[in-house]
Amino acid sequence: MKRNTYLTLLPPEEARANWFSCLDAKAFALGEERIPLAQALRRVLSRPVAALRSSPAFHGAAMDGIAVHAEDTFTASARTPLRLKLGEQAHWINTGHPLPLGCNAVVMMENINTETEKDSQGESQWAVIEKAAFPWQHVRKMGEDMVATEIILPPGTCIGPYDLGALAAGGALEVPVFRRPRVSIIPSGSEIVPLVDAREEDLRAGRVLPEFNSLIFSAMITEAGGEAATLPVVPDDPEAIRAAIASAIATADMVILNAGSSAGSHDFTAHVLGQMGTVVTHGISVMPGKPTVLAVVNGKPVVGVPGYPVSAGISMEEFVLPLLALWQKRAMSERQKITAVPCNPLPSRPGMEERLRVKLGCVGDTVVAVPLPRGAGTITSLSRADGIIRIPRDSEGCNAGEPVTVELLRPATALAGALLAIGSHDNTLDLLDSMLRKAHPQFRLTSAHVGSLGGIMALKRGQCHLAGSHLLDPASGVYNRKAIEDNLEEPTVLLRLVDREQGILTAPGNPLGINGIEDLARPGVRFINRQRGSGTRVLLDYRLSCLGIAPTSINGYRDEEYTHMNVAAAVLSGRVDAGLAVRAAANALGLPFTPIGVEEYDLVIPRRFFDGDAVQALLDVIRSEAFRQTVEGMGGYGTEKTGQVIWEYAGK
Amino acid sequence: MKRNTYLTLLPPEEARANWFSCLDAKAFALGEERIPLAQALRRVLSRPVAALRSSPAFHGAAMDGIAVHAEDTFTASARTPLRLKLGEQAHWINTGHPLPLGCNAVVMMENINTETEKDSQGESQWAVIEKAAFPWQHVRKMGEDMVATEIILPPGTCIGPYDLGALAAGGALEVPVFRRPRVSIIPSGSEIVPLVDAREEDLRAGRVLPEFNSLIFSAMITEAGGEAATLPVVPDDPEAIRAAIASAIATADMVILNAGSSAGSHDFTAHVLGQMGTVVTHGISVMPGKPTVLAVVNGKPVVGVPGYPVSAGISMEEFVLPLLALWQKRAMSERQKITAVPCNPLPSRPGMEERLRVKLGCVGDTVVAVPLPRGAGTITSLSRADGIIRIPRDSEGCNAGEPVTVELLRPATALAGALLAIGSHDNTLDLLDSMLRKAHPQFRLTSAHVGSLGGIMALKRGQCHLAGSHLLDPASGVYNRKAIEDNLEEPTVLLRLVDREQGILTAPGNPLGINGIEDLARPGVRFINRQRGSGTRVLLDYRLSCLGIAPTSINGYRDEEYTHMNVAAAVLSGRVDAGLAVRAAANALGLPFTPIGVEEYDLVIPRRFFDGDAVQALLDVIRSEAFRQTVEGMGGYGTEKTGQVIWEYAGK
Repeated sequence: MKRNTYLTLLPPEEARANWFSCLDAKAFALGEERIPLAQALRRVLSRPVAALRSSPAFHGAAMDGIAVHAEDTFTASARTPLRLKLGEQAHWINTGHPLPLGCNAVVMMENINTETEKDSQGESQWAVIEKAAFPWQHVRKMGEDMVATEIILPPGTCIGPYDLGALAAGGALEVPVFRRPRVSIIPSGSEIVPLVDAREEDLRAGRVLPEFNSLIFSAMITEAGGEAATLPVVPDDPEAIRAAIASAIATADMVILNAGSSAGSHDFTAHVLGQMGTVVTHGISVMPGKPTVLAVVNGKPVVGVPGYPVSAGISMEEFVLPLLALWQKRAMSERQKITAVPCNPLPSRPGMEERLRVKLGCVGDTVVAVPLPRGAGTITSLSRADGIIRIPRDSEGCNAGEPVTVELLRPATALAGALLAIGSHDNTLDLLDSMLRKAHPQFRLTSAHVGSLGGIMALKRGQCHLAGSHLLDPASGVYNRKAIEDNLEEPTVLLRLVDREQGILTAPGNPLGINGIEDLARPGVRFINRQRGSGTRVLLDYRLSCLGIAPTSINGYRDEEYTHMNVAAAVLSGRVDAGLAVRAAANALGLPFTPIGVEEYDLVIPRRFFDGDAVQALLDVIRSEAFRQTVEGMGGYGTEKTGQVIWEYAGK
Repeated sequence: MKRNTYLTLLPPEEARANWFSCLDAKAFALGEERIPLAQALRRVLSRPVAALRSSPAFHGAAMDGIAVHAEDTFTASARTPLRLKLGEQAHWINTGHPLPLGCNAVVMMENINTETEKDSQGESQWAVIEKAAFPWQHVRKMGEDMVATEIILPPGTCIGPYDLGALAAGGALEVPVFRRPRVSIIPSGSEIVPLVDAREEDLRAGRVLPEFNSLIFSAMITEAGGEAATLPVVPDDPEAIRAAIASAIATADMVILNAGSSAGSHDFTAHVLGQMGTVVTHGISVMPGKPTVLAVVNGKPVVGVPGYPVSAGISMEEFVLPLLALWQKRAMSERQKITAVPCNPLPSRPGMEERLRVKLGCVGDTVVAVPLPRGAGTITSLSRADGIIRIPRDSEGCNAGEPVTVELLRPATALAGALLAIGSHDNTLDLLDSMLRKAHPQFRLTSAHVGSLGGIMALKRGQCHLAGSHLLDPASGVYNRKAIEDNLEEPTVLLRLVDREQGILTAPGNPLGINGIEDLARPGVRFINRQRGSGTRVLLDYRLSCLGIAPTSINGYRDEEYTHMNVAAAVLSGRVDAGLAVRAAANALGLPFTPIGVEEYDLVIPRRFFDGDAVQALLDVIRSEAFRQTVEGMGGYGTEKTGQVIWEYAGK
């Protein structure tokens, strides 16, 4: 097989600088346009805007009252009140109205008495004041806010709501802004089909891959002030790719080719771009994101963006967004940084910078970072992430508990309300999170899945607020209490979340007729186990010993998966014939389910967190009728004791 | 005159809670709608979205190479390489493609050698490997990212680019989102005309006021996820206002009435709303923002928003935006907070919380806050602000140098590049800022105007990076050096920015024939002076003493204005006959200008800042041909020595 090779891998900042320096000066001078103010929200000013008029445009009253000539009032005092004839020396005036000629001050309504006088010429009105007015008191002077010709806003301003007001006050009804940079996106790949055209059976068979990176890119480009156009999908064919780029580059300011930027035999991006122009960089020293191609064709920028969505996102953030900012003369907005402590060690390969997506929670005074899956293909590791940890090129990673810098993807204030749950996973935790957010938008439940015992150990290290657990003590037949007594020191509450059915998952139709634990030991049955420390494995071992079956007699007892869902996936894909999991996992993938028993799935919550607002809000939800009903509707759950405090552990 | 009265002034959080509690439950249940994913950017999920399909949908290769059955490879080692027949025991595979049936691992291209063998049955290809593959290595397993039925995103999620990707991966091609809350804006006021209809001569005469608050409100509502509609302007007439509200409330989720919310005789908002429904609050204990009316009509929320733009902004932020957030079950995003030191004392009235807009600069290790004008009508105090200081109700303000909390309106990172200039104002400083931002988007020049001597005193206190100054020493006739020697201790550079013409401004047509300093002392001439410590006043005093004219002989010598522009405005408005200012101020308002001399306007820059990147970038701009040409074009400036270091002060 023919393969390409990467050029030397460059750090992104270096790659970016090289690339920018190869672009035509012309490619940097984005055009401008004048647009009506009403359309200018979040556009970027291309030049300074000066006030065309002064604001206010006249001397106006800043209070309701009477307009006077201040010098006329200098004799007024409490002992010698001054009478001013209304209509002559004093004039009623409302806030915002122009001062009559000759007036230079306003006396507030509250400080005026009125008198009516009748004489030979008829009736006249007088205002009586007991205090002198100083010149220009309660007057908004002409030009107080801005004077004509003054610069209202500098170029590079991204126009916000108040900026619109300032521009309007200065009479700038049209404003000069940078034209939106036009970015054309070319999806490529022979199996790629537009998202809406992907049929389920073709997807499952791997015959087609749905294209949705362009959706992500378009959104990123739009938010960065650009205009994105997604072109039709191009097959893995150098000629077709060449033609698509040539056509796109004729009108776009920048072209994105996705994917084919790697070094595989079907990866033509670097090759084709090298023929059409100059490949400045192929390969950057960042994971994910490595297979990025930076090129210049006809003086214009072309980016080969990797296919995996996480790699693609980093390539977009490192190269496409900075160029969009530069075009609009804007500084890139940097993410807020905080210090956090990872809950496990984070090993990393030296020579490559790694960007790890993490969830975050404030546990006591510490911000704890829980790493999300590292794979470049796990888009949920971005959508679920609260922050990013950069492990530098020269590092082999960081140890658990060692403080690291995290770039925040959400406002720091959003973290304050996050309850961090580490432990066994159950689908009801996601439901809880959703219902908690709806009822109490200031709180959220963030969960990470390491198995029941792993969660209790995280509690012991002070790294989470609560842990989901279903650990059966085989000696007593009692759930969770022994694990808490054995491991935790602080007072802790054991709260029932749900009772849940565990059972055996088999292939559709259950062709091998597996109907109980004893069938797992039958010859020819391939089984998949859960990892040590998981409640499900403990349950299996307990049942096996009750039945007097030796674990070694089960084919596959030593093979481990880490979640219920992964067990279900292993069964569905035909890799194994049976596995143990909750009914929800069977339901999710439409697999037959043979119940083997009901277990107690509890939340383990240290007392100091239990009494806090966030856990109390969570309790409200757990104890709500809506939660019970929804859980019951999911199948495989019992809610008889849901929300009950099962046990209070005094600590030691 | 008939006047309304405020109800008891309430703190905003209390007013908000009261108001929310009076709304119909119905008014809180915003509808939902299902929209295509491609239109979902920044919409808010109304319910959890579960994956309709697993992602990946099949076991696929994570690398280019060969797909194998791992158990077949267990004997492979460097000493005993293993040969696998291609097409039977091993299969070429590209990244992303599905594993052939029976395969459960991928061996990377880099670790494979190939051999060709010819025998009786023809030619066959073999892959040779020297290392065993472990099961599922380099395989993206089905459901690795998400498994069908799993919750992808919880309700309340404001959908960002990566969220679009996650939803797409899970097959959610349509998503349930909250309907956008509809907000109708009714501008009111008999003099109010839509911005685009305001004629210049009517504005100047105060016959009309341009309406632009609706532009600000619409933008704020749009950014908060709502849908804004601005209705026609309604005159100050209770019946017309009533009709407009009744019609708007029929279709809108919320109505904003602007203005008429104060307690003046033409302020009908509270009165009309009281008749139509319930006024929950009239008046909040915050400045600006006090004259806010919170009402409920037909169970729906109606807000009377004050007319001054700064008051209006605070009313929007305190009441309208939180309700929009609540409707969409989102937590309000809070502003980042930092600690800063105000450069002057900030007195405030107890009993009212005050929100002061400030500019910020990082000077050494200190963030310095420079207050902007406090008037509720100065929209530029919002558009120019970097942050907001809240002075609590129970405080009389804060002292200069006393640390205070500032809520940031711009990212903290934007502050790092801000050069803070405090001192004499000149229009070329705004020009410099604009050109600096264009050439170096990471830097900006923030300036505050307190006169020349005030700037040098700010430098002395370490509160700014540089000061504009034009202080003539009458004894020597030399500019700025003596003031530096008298006041500063650290090594400092004196850099010429511009030479500029000072002169006498007179009313259009110069009806009194004022042609020189000596004419200012003529009987019947009303003069306006600048404040003590300003370079312009020092210049006047110097010229008067040269001519032997006693200051006391000038009518108005004791009346002070604080800026060139204010002097020009005083002359234009007919308040005085003459004043002293730079030619630019005369040009700005079209006033006759009689030059009296050229003065030196310099930048005073401590050496430690002079050598920094930001000042060096500023120097690049000052010394550029473009800056010189633009300054020359403004009139009244000389640039012969622009950018030259005039003097280096060694300090003491």
